[in-house]
Amino acid sequence: MKNIEEYIELINKKLDQYIPEDIFPEDIFKAMKYTVTLPGKRLRPIMCMESCEIFGGKYENAIPTACAIEMLHAQTLIHDDLPCMDNDDFRRGKPTNHKVFGEANAVLAGDALLSFAPQIIIKYSKHLGAEKLLKIIEEYTQYSGAYGVIAGQVADIEAEKNWKNNIFGLKPEELLAFIHSHKTADLFKLSLRTGAIIAGANEKDLEKITELGEKLGVAFQISDDILDETSTFEEMGKTLGKDKATEKLTYVTLYGIDEAKHKLTCILDECCVMISGFEKKSAALLEIIEGIKKRVGI
Amino acid sequence: MKNIEEYIELINKKLDQYIPEDIFPEDIFKAMKYTVTLPGKRLRPIMCMESCEIFGGKYENAIPTACAIEMLHAQTLIHDDLPCMDNDDFRRGKPTNHKVFGEANAVLAGDALLSFAPQIIIKYSKHLGAEKLLKIIEEYTQYSGAYGVIAGQVADIEAEKNWKNNIFGLKPEELLAFIHSHKTADLFKLSLRTGAIIAGANEKDLEKITELGEKLGVAFQISDDILDETSTFEEMGKTLGKDKATEKLTYVTLYGIDEAKHKLTCILDECCVMISGFEKKSAALLEIIEGIKKRVGI
Repeated sequence: MKNIEEYIELINKKLDQYIPEDIFPEDIFKAMKYTVTLPGKRLRPIMCMESCEIFGGKYENAIPTACAIEMLHAQTLIHDDLPCMDNDDFRRGKPTNHKVFGEANAVLAGDALLSFAPQIIIKYSKHLGAEKLLKIIEEYTQYSGAYGVIAGQVADIEAEKNWKNNIFGLKPEELLAFIHSHKTADLFKLSLRTGAIIAGANEKDLEKITELGEKLGVAFQISDDILDETSTFEEMGKTLGKDKATEKLTYVTLYGIDEAKHKLTCILDECCVMISGFEKKSAALLEIIEGIKKRVGI
Repeated sequence: MKNIEEYIELINKKLDQYIPEDIFPEDIFKAMKYTVTLPGKRLRPIMCMESCEIFGGKYENAIPTACAIEMLHAQTLIHDDLPCMDNDDFRRGKPTNHKVFGEANAVLAGDALLSFAPQIIIKYSKHLGAEKLLKIIEEYTQYSGAYGVIAGQVADIEAEKNWKNNIFGLKPEELLAFIHSHKTADLFKLSLRTGAIIAGANEKDLEKITELGEKLGVAFQISDDILDETSTFEEMGKTLGKDKATEKLTYVTLYGIDEAKHKLTCILDECCVMISGFEKKSAALLEIIEGIKKRVGI
């Protein structure tokens, strides 16, 4: 186990290594690398490696999978930021991918990452054996696709237009729960589950870690919803205040800031209890929780 | 082995079965299914199943992989047609995906297919065993990504702007060869290679079938370049004549129609020799070649 700073350093080094720069046509690899290597919290890869440790594995074995999930996360950011989606010009304090490389290359860079990420897993995790590797790829396809993060994104887009009218036959609070569960929590679940699978965790453990991923994901999204209203461009590196301006369906627009903070505190407390219940304690996961609390000042 | 019509019927049935319609949020599955199930020649899945038969396997074992490659092909069409790419309004005689479902959903439907396709392979090909399945997924990630079809697309986009000035340090004929090899031939190679792998073909056979895929892919792209100038919207179901109007780098703009037809005839003759050289003959592949000839009237 490492601490957060050590993990981030390791992940950044590996992400840089994994994506080549000198392969023709260079534009596509440059565009992929640009967003993947923007400084970030690296929550998902840290979760993946820590989950592996929690269940008795070595974090080193989870490095390729952890980095692949960060690439997948970057892919969702590149496409989310496109003019036809959220139309954002800044991400992590830098111009978004399409602002630097053009829209066509940004679409293709995202597409390329969706194939590149599992390729990295397979290429650098051969020692795990075909059975386990296939299980990891299966998880990757499930949580990254139309049953996973994309389901959340589609619902999120629909919700922007018309959430007050019970679209999809769902009440706003049900729709919001669906969006949070998929748009954000699915990559957290994928990270924790694949780490656990690499360690050889059993089904019962997988269920537990999935529940933790759901809670952490929802908590993180609530904190993001809060920050959209309370933070600044300088602090967050992206344009904020859009949720309120567009009356978007978020935890804050639905329940208000105070209730959002209260709910966030409750979920994070539950997460701490769960993390402390595992045989091997994860200081890094507890640190992530402290980080979320600090972000929103609770 | 089946004939072309029987294969197409089988593929259409399976594509329809594989993509569900009643899963929330329905929009994304509808958008995926829309483009995947537009009537098409189904060249790639037929190649995959026939390659499996050529090397002594049963085409039935290749059905999920064959259909997954057709889904991947549909993904490239959806994103290629986007306003920021080719900006096409019609595909196979119908409005393009973004015209029906909106740009955001079209981007996400394409993304979803990139995860859904390998998921289908894994879900329905368990009987092949983990080793072989992993090899197929590896091929899928290689040929679908930045080393494969996307490399061709990126070079194609760059070539639109500035191909007369030796971009990337390549002469126009070298650049064109790169584009054809990746943009079109890579999915042909993927189809033939995965079919062969399912059958248990050896390395030497894989090399041969890869060479056939390269030739067939280049031939098909040359025929497409010819048709862009000589065919009509009614015949092709998409807007034509854009290559000439935009002076795009194609086999026809570079060498002229007559030379393109001559080259096409030569390559297809080579393909026929190769196909006849395999121990088990593929009538369907020969039929595909006849179809290409007929398309352009040679």
